[in-house]
Amino acid sequence: MKNILIIGAGRSASACINYCLKNAKERGWFVTVADADPKQAEKRINNHPNGRSAWLDVTKKNDRKDLISRHDIVVSLLPAHLHLLVAKDCIQFQKHLVTASYVSKEMYRLGDEARDASLIFMGEMGLDPGIDHMSAMRLLNQIRDKGGNIKAFRSYAGGLIAPESDDNPWHYKFTWNPRNVVLAGQGTAQYMEEGKYKYTPYSRLFKEHHTIDVPEMGKYEAYANRDSLLYREIYGVEGIPNILRATLRAPGFCDAWNALVQIGLTDGSYPIHDADKITYHEWMNAYLPEGNGSVKERMANFLGEDVDSEVMQKLEWLGLFKKVKINLAQATPALILEHLLLQKWTLKPEDKDMIIMQHEIEYELKGKNYNVVSSMVMKGNGEEDTAMARLVGLPMGIFVKLIIDGKITTTGVNIPVMKEVYDPVLDELEKYGVIFKEQEVEV
Amino acid sequence: MKNILIIGAGRSASACINYCLKNAKERGWFVTVADADPKQAEKRINNHPNGRSAWLDVTKKNDRKDLISRHDIVVSLLPAHLHLLVAKDCIQFQKHLVTASYVSKEMYRLGDEARDASLIFMGEMGLDPGIDHMSAMRLLNQIRDKGGNIKAFRSYAGGLIAPESDDNPWHYKFTWNPRNVVLAGQGTAQYMEEGKYKYTPYSRLFKEHHTIDVPEMGKYEAYANRDSLLYREIYGVEGIPNILRATLRAPGFCDAWNALVQIGLTDGSYPIHDADKITYHEWMNAYLPEGNGSVKERMANFLGEDVDSEVMQKLEWLGLFKKVKINLAQATPALILEHLLLQKWTLKPEDKDMIIMQHEIEYELKGKNYNVVSSMVMKGNGEEDTAMARLVGLPMGIFVKLIIDGKITTTGVNIPVMKEVYDPVLDELEKYGVIFKEQEVEV
Repeated sequence: MKNILIIGAGRSASACINYCLKNAKERGWFVTVADADPKQAEKRINNHPNGRSAWLDVTKKNDRKDLISRHDIVVSLLPAHLHLLVAKDCIQFQKHLVTASYVSKEMYRLGDEARDASLIFMGEMGLDPGIDHMSAMRLLNQIRDKGGNIKAFRSYAGGLIAPESDDNPWHYKFTWNPRNVVLAGQGTAQYMEEGKYKYTPYSRLFKEHHTIDVPEMGKYEAYANRDSLLYREIYGVEGIPNILRATLRAPGFCDAWNALVQIGLTDGSYPIHDADKITYHEWMNAYLPEGNGSVKERMANFLGEDVDSEVMQKLEWLGLFKKVKINLAQATPALILEHLLLQKWTLKPEDKDMIIMQHEIEYELKGKNYNVVSSMVMKGNGEEDTAMARLVGLPMGIFVKLIIDGKITTTGVNIPVMKEVYDPVLDELEKYGVIFKEQEVEV
Repeated sequence: MKNILIIGAGRSASACINYCLKNAKERGWFVTVADADPKQAEKRINNHPNGRSAWLDVTKKNDRKDLISRHDIVVSLLPAHLHLLVAKDCIQFQKHLVTASYVSKEMYRLGDEARDASLIFMGEMGLDPGIDHMSAMRLLNQIRDKGGNIKAFRSYAGGLIAPESDDNPWHYKFTWNPRNVVLAGQGTAQYMEEGKYKYTPYSRLFKEHHTIDVPEMGKYEAYANRDSLLYREIYGVEGIPNILRATLRAPGFCDAWNALVQIGLTDGSYPIHDADKITYHEWMNAYLPEGNGSVKERMANFLGEDVDSEVMQKLEWLGLFKKVKINLAQATPALILEHLLLQKWTLKPEDKDMIIMQHEIEYELKGKNYNVVSSMVMKGNGEEDTAMARLVGLPMGIFVKLIIDGKITTTGVNIPVMKEVYDPVLDELEKYGVIFKEQEVEV
């Protein structure tokens, strides 16, 4: 068993492909990289003797089945909704499957079939979801193993820009799917505090951010990330009185993003009239009643901000008050915002992105209360070798090696919360600089 | 042609049924009232010699087709999504159809078939939509006919409680589908002001209300009603620089409803955990971070209100801070709110509801500018004979008579914007007290 098929050769695939190719040489594996763009796949292989590229339109059933049938392990880096196509072929041809995406209900339904065929289907094997699960489970299990009673679990993660590459007033650049950044948080966040359920609707999610200290890095803002309550069962902490998963941003980001939400700019549900003809300035005016004063002044007034406040400076820097044409026919507010941000928040070739992940756990042991803070910071190295791509791709590559080496006994559809997975993956990730530093204090 | 089938015998059907029965006696019509609840249909017929009741589950194809095939005109008072079933049968059996609901895209697609068979399919023939279209078109056409150039059209309507029956701090009771009241305004309102498109997202819709004067009634609050821009084409005022449709509420309502929106209580998209076990007091606490002070104090603080402000008094009157169990398993916030409001905003047997409709038009004629205000106020007479039921039902009844009398030449799928419809319907409505009073001033 040594034939690996990696489907998807986009930017986020590079670290996973490189890891597999490096091991391929030492261990005699063969790695096929398939993509709808064969040039992109070729570029990733870069003439490696153990690699080859393939041209694959994944919706073409016969091509897909043919390719999958000729490999032993499939790594799918496709958009999440396409994994299921691949998964069903993996059942048919009895192949293992690894993805970095959230496991859908439909995917979980393949669990029995996968288990019956002794197949390993591992999802959520990237950064977030992925490293967050593994590092949290290691920490939680260590505390439980010594008899600790866990009172609070709070987990924070953010894909950010390193301070040395931070050159804009938002202190943010895109290192991941821009569309997901624009739409982040829509719905109602749910978490638990002092044994009580808490709900935060989107309209006040960014306003109600709080601040955390990241050792050696300083202060970051955090806003609640979707439904934290789901993780009570996944992490085996059903009765825990405090649980929160949150997203990190640089100080000042959340208030300014809240302004975009309040104006209505993150709404993807209806098109703006004449968006191919009007300017950003006219677009902003469309959210304000007609009246005296400039659009910027009326906007500041509506937002309850001084006209030169930090929030208003961020909006101005985006160009929202410029008399420049939008030039996007039939676009929704969210799409216009995404296009504008793409011009403003793009990584430069030499920019370093930065991932921060931090778990904060409170537990009681033999009548004493402890706080543990476990944090990991990783910086990228330019727009190609981002920390984001590394931390999404390396866990999948390492897990492929564990499968080939016969180290994984858990079959069926799973996420990486079991010791036989998280221990070796986290141990090897340390060699790549993924190091969680722990600080524990008695309180 | 004298056999009328009225499908639906709920409260909103009574005025339409009574109108048809009264005319049936004089004109030798026969009226069948069909409902899933045969007792309800019987009650509406009340032993009238020209009426009979029928028991109909409208989803039972054969029963439905059988009943429709034996009548000449069908009035559908079903929930909006069920009209299409009836409409297709009306095509098959060549029957006319009248409804008070918004005409869906699917319904409009039946237009050619209906026209080819010389059938009259009239939708939006109630109050709003219905009387609003007819009274607006009459007024707009009168101004156009004398050469006026229309500069602004603003139309307001509200289903309210008459001042003499107003005995709660919200100055509101349910006279219409409570679920629609709770969910009203979700999405983004669109209108036009001084030639410019305006967008108001739900999160600030109720905050950004304005106040209008209703002659003889005083001040009412108005919030923008969905997409006003759609009505430019319908009313033939494509180039108009100002157009707005808005919903009326009593003074003080909008700020308090905005508080419910901001807390998150109108969200119907997710269930509240343990909603069968917790109290309203605990539910409110779930929207606030834990902290010092009572739930009411923290809520006031979050909303930026004094703890005894009018908004807070309205929330308190609803019982949102009471330690009373909600007792609704798996309920969404919107559903819990609806159930609570149903206990608080119910019409008493002797309560009078009140409909207000007001159009405000600005136009230019021979170099002079004019403002017209056309307003209609109607009060109901107890919980059965509501102004709402009358104004929804009478236009349909009158229109049925016009069809039978051969007065309608427009076939196909339509809404009542043509003179041959609005003139006779509005004229007859005047006999029932539906009187628009006009005030015109030169400005």
